Amino acid sequence: MKIEGKNSVLEALRSDNVTVNTLFCERGKADGVISFARQKGVKISFVDKSVLDKISPSQKHQGYVADVTDFEYCQTEDIISASEQSLIVVLDGLNDPHNFGSIIRVCECAGADGIIIGKNRQVAVNDTVVRVSAGAASHVRIARVGNINNTIKQLQQSGVWVYALDMDGQEITTVDMKGPVAIVVGGEGEGISSLTKKCCDGVVSLKLKGKVNSLNASVACGIALYEVVRQRG
Amino acid sequence: MKIEGKNSVLEALRSDNVTVNTLFCERGKADGVISFARQKGVKISFVDKSVLDKISPSQKHQGYVADVTDFEYCQTEDIISASEQSLIVVLDGLNDPHNFGSIIRVCECAGADGIIIGKNRQVAVNDTVVRVSAGAASHVRIARVGNINNTIKQLQQSGVWVYALDMDGQEITTVDMKGPVAIVVGGEGEGISSLTKKCCDGVVSLKLKGKVNSLNASVACGIALYEVVRQRG
Repeated sequence: MKIEGKNSVLEALRSDNVTVNTLFCERGKADGVISFARQKGVKISFVDKSVLDKISPSQKHQGYVADVTDFEYCQTEDIISASEQSLIVVLDGLNDPHNFGSIIRVCECAGADGIIIGKNRQVAVNDTVVRVSAGAASHVRIARVGNINNTIKQLQQSGVWVYALDMDGQEITTVDMKGPVAIVVGGEGEGISSLTKKCCDGVVSLKLKGKVNSLNASVACGIALYEVVRQRG
Repeated sequence: MKIEGKNSVLEALRSDNVTVNTLFCERGKADGVISFARQKGVKISFVDKSVLDKISPSQKHQGYVADVTDFEYCQTEDIISASEQSLIVVLDGLNDPHNFGSIIRVCECAGADGIIIGKNRQVAVNDTVVRVSAGAASHVRIARVGNINNTIKQLQQSGVWVYALDMDGQEITTVDMKGPVAIVVGGEGEGISSLTKKCCDGVVSLKLKGKVNSLNASVACGIALYEVVRQRG
């Protein structure tokens, strides 16, 4: 979808339910919209006015056309109340849209109740994520929250056990995952933030037998989810 | 690494131990080298002579410079004899270098003995695969064979049970994977070829609980490998 005009584009950049994939600006522009887009990590493409005229739906672009995805996020409560035996994935600082799309796929296959992502340091549901998810993004509940740590507390108050998936924990096959659980998966580079890890009820790990021992986030998430599915039989 | 000159480039294209990532040709060339490269699925880039002069290591390019990866493949026997309790992955027609790199990573983590790939319909170990493997490609044995089905027979004769990982099999958590096993993983689009599937001793599946049920090849492979690791304790 295309959004155009200075104010509309600014609103789209501010919105929690709209993800700006690319902001097309008229060459020579340098103002608050551009610096705000840059701050939000949005891809900016400077083009000639003739290009904007071409892609503008109503020819009222004022020098700005944003290509956006309006993914409908749900509320955390919708995910918590989706089933009695919760299986929830919390993403903490995942930057790679391919990994995110792949996690959505495996959540769909494993029958997870939903995914909770933060608004900061985290790729939103954009066009690449939707494409990589191979259709699964239409079937998995995804909530976007301001503060992951508060959400973890909310999950715990609802009776969900929250486990960080990291290298220094108890092997997941030896932990009882039959009750309502949420698994926190960290980003590719930095992993789970130490503060978020402290909020969790425990840390679960995968057995690592190699020298490099660097598992892709989506593969690690998939293995953990299917261990829960196995335990639940 | 760069290889240059008509004959050297042709040899590189023919070789089993060298993967040509990109073939740079002087603009206007149209001969057997180019048609052979095209047939092998190599990316061809036509450039000006001045560009070739710049990237040519010895200025004897004759209009051809190939960017190659000389990955050292091992023999199937090396993988079979690596351990008594074999854990081997066989890839049948995997085209996505990201998936291949990710599979190498999870094989390294799960302590698999090695990966066997075919020479046809299958991405070789190229620069992207090595990069995505995050270092794991240096630690995992990879063999490249002319005929996957013959190799499956060879594995079986060595006492390895060969299972196809597909949707219509027995749930892997209910199959005894404690003995020497090989898991055959198919490509993203077509999956395992029907002939290859017939050569296998059985078909194992992951429990699928969703509507889309399309698992990424590397995630599926990772889940299957870790189920074997779990069973072996």
